[in-house]
Amino acid sequence: MKVLVIGAAGMVGRKLVAALLAAEQVGGKPVAQLTLADVVAPVPPAAAIPITALAVDLSAPQVAEQLVADRPDLIFHLAAIVSGEAEVDFEKGYRINLDGTRHLLEAIRLAGQGGPYRPRLVFTSSIAVFGEPLPEIIGDTHHHTPLTSYGTQKAICELLLSDYSRRGFVDGVGIRLPTIVVRPGKPNKAASGFFSGILREPLSGQPAVLPVADSVRHWFASPRAAVGFLLHAAAMDTALLGDQRNLSMPGLAATVGEEIAALERVAGPQATALIQRVPDETIVNIVAGWPKAFEANRAKSLGFRGDASFDDIIRIHIEDELGGRVGS
Amino acid sequence: MKVLVIGAAGMVGRKLVAALLAAEQVGGKPVAQLTLADVVAPVPPAAAIPITALAVDLSAPQVAEQLVADRPDLIFHLAAIVSGEAEVDFEKGYRINLDGTRHLLEAIRLAGQGGPYRPRLVFTSSIAVFGEPLPEIIGDTHHHTPLTSYGTQKAICELLLSDYSRRGFVDGVGIRLPTIVVRPGKPNKAASGFFSGILREPLSGQPAVLPVADSVRHWFASPRAAVGFLLHAAAMDTALLGDQRNLSMPGLAATVGEEIAALERVAGPQATALIQRVPDETIVNIVAGWPKAFEANRAKSLGFRGDASFDDIIRIHIEDELGGRVGS
Repeated sequence: MKVLVIGAAGMVGRKLVAALLAAEQVGGKPVAQLTLADVVAPVPPAAAIPITALAVDLSAPQVAEQLVADRPDLIFHLAAIVSGEAEVDFEKGYRINLDGTRHLLEAIRLAGQGGPYRPRLVFTSSIAVFGEPLPEIIGDTHHHTPLTSYGTQKAICELLLSDYSRRGFVDGVGIRLPTIVVRPGKPNKAASGFFSGILREPLSGQPAVLPVADSVRHWFASPRAAVGFLLHAAAMDTALLGDQRNLSMPGLAATVGEEIAALERVAGPQATALIQRVPDETIVNIVAGWPKAFEANRAKSLGFRGDASFDDIIRIHIEDELGGRVGS
Repeated sequence: MKVLVIGAAGMVGRKLVAALLAAEQVGGKPVAQLTLADVVAPVPPAAAIPITALAVDLSAPQVAEQLVADRPDLIFHLAAIVSGEAEVDFEKGYRINLDGTRHLLEAIRLAGQGGPYRPRLVFTSSIAVFGEPLPEIIGDTHHHTPLTSYGTQKAICELLLSDYSRRGFVDGVGIRLPTIVVRPGKPNKAASGFFSGILREPLSGQPAVLPVADSVRHWFASPRAAVGFLLHAAAMDTALLGDQRNLSMPGLAATVGEEIAALERVAGPQATALIQRVPDETIVNIVAGWPKAFEANRAKSLGFRGDASFDDIIRIHIEDELGGRVGS
């Protein structure tokens, strides 16, 4: 099968590509050809199959048509302007996150007018489609009231994905990813950055700042679990989805205190001693409006599997990013 | 205040315009100027204030900019391709129902870059944003899983309305109208047509066909109640909405049997004798997936008032459409 990954240069995209190449198949069908697209050309990994890497802007005219010209059987669409940038640059957020996705859906629909074509499209949505007021545990039928332009754009794309699937133009699965921890790389300024930072930095012997209370509860998945969600969405029987093509993924609910306790169990008190508590009222207020936990019963019943424990999430980081070793 | 009505030639639009002219004010502010727009030029009613009637396609370039050029203080956006047409003509539905609304929102946002401008925008959404599986009574936090392209387009516009309002570009209120009964005029081929037909035709001494069982339950509002919702949305304190700008209106839940019983109470057994029961499997199946009733607690707490009884709904039709008289 031909596979197209849009957003292949991002953290999840790179791990997905590595997993696809390692598995060599999706749902029992061999991966014969891989196209990697992103705003910067992805670095194609060494592989036994042909890989094409493209630097493209999905929101530009004709780009989506070009991407689907050779009729990929499976498309992962991970590309997006992140929440903070979509909030600062209103027009860019709508152009990339909404129009880009709509261009892709339209290109697929129009390709189908030249002969049968109905690829599997796995779209990464976000728990940002949910906004206050929220229940402690968000059920699978809770409405979408995003409180960011990013969340609005994701919620709109979910609706489009379902409608294009219902009309038979595409075979879509939208998955709402939890907050990814431990996110590898440098600390960033995202309001959610500390959830990873208080684990990642101490695991490398570096200090980290915790701007919120230990009691703050949130919804997590490891990068490995996120890739697992994507691959399961690519291979699952979508007849089981009916016309509701979007799913909250089964993350792991944990408080910051539980994160820290897991860190201590896995890496010892010398790791947790590196966490400095410096409350930041701005971040406290932002995070207060975020989802705390989901039922995700529908996704679980459809075979999606998240992380078993926060200890596992930390061990995954140590295995996949630190070569199995903790410390400076 | 300057008022713009987009979709002014439709049934609800015409009644809204008549109500605006009769009231002469909205929320205590005099209506000084009225612009009526629709795909066919609305017939301007006789009035003491200046009325402009325009034939425009909101989805065409520059049209939205022209409509907001004189900075109306209050905009009603009622224009849409109906459900059946949006399902048959996919591109037209998205062009008119989604792009048209987005053009309007963008024109308002861009007008605000030339000086403070944040008009009240009342948008008519629909209970078609909801789709199976549905609870017997749909709560205010139930998710949107539209099963038509029309419902998808309305759900997307709701999300845009909330985001543009949250960002301060517009002061939006989206109202999900119940099915309007008794819809005046000729019978049409809409699947919902019989809900009005079994009242309207007998009230004029004509036979009517009932294609579903008497036990079918649905959600209704009279045209007068619908206009009341629009006027309340135009005058209400939107600070009470917070960032959630869309509301299910308080309709009246009734079974077909209750409709018929009300008809008999108001117009006698000679009216109900004109209803022929001719089951239509296609319509039975379509209607089976429709909402049956809503809580609408949020709208009620915000002062929206629906019809008190089905007897009232029938009396409103007799008063407003039949000159107070029943019969052929």
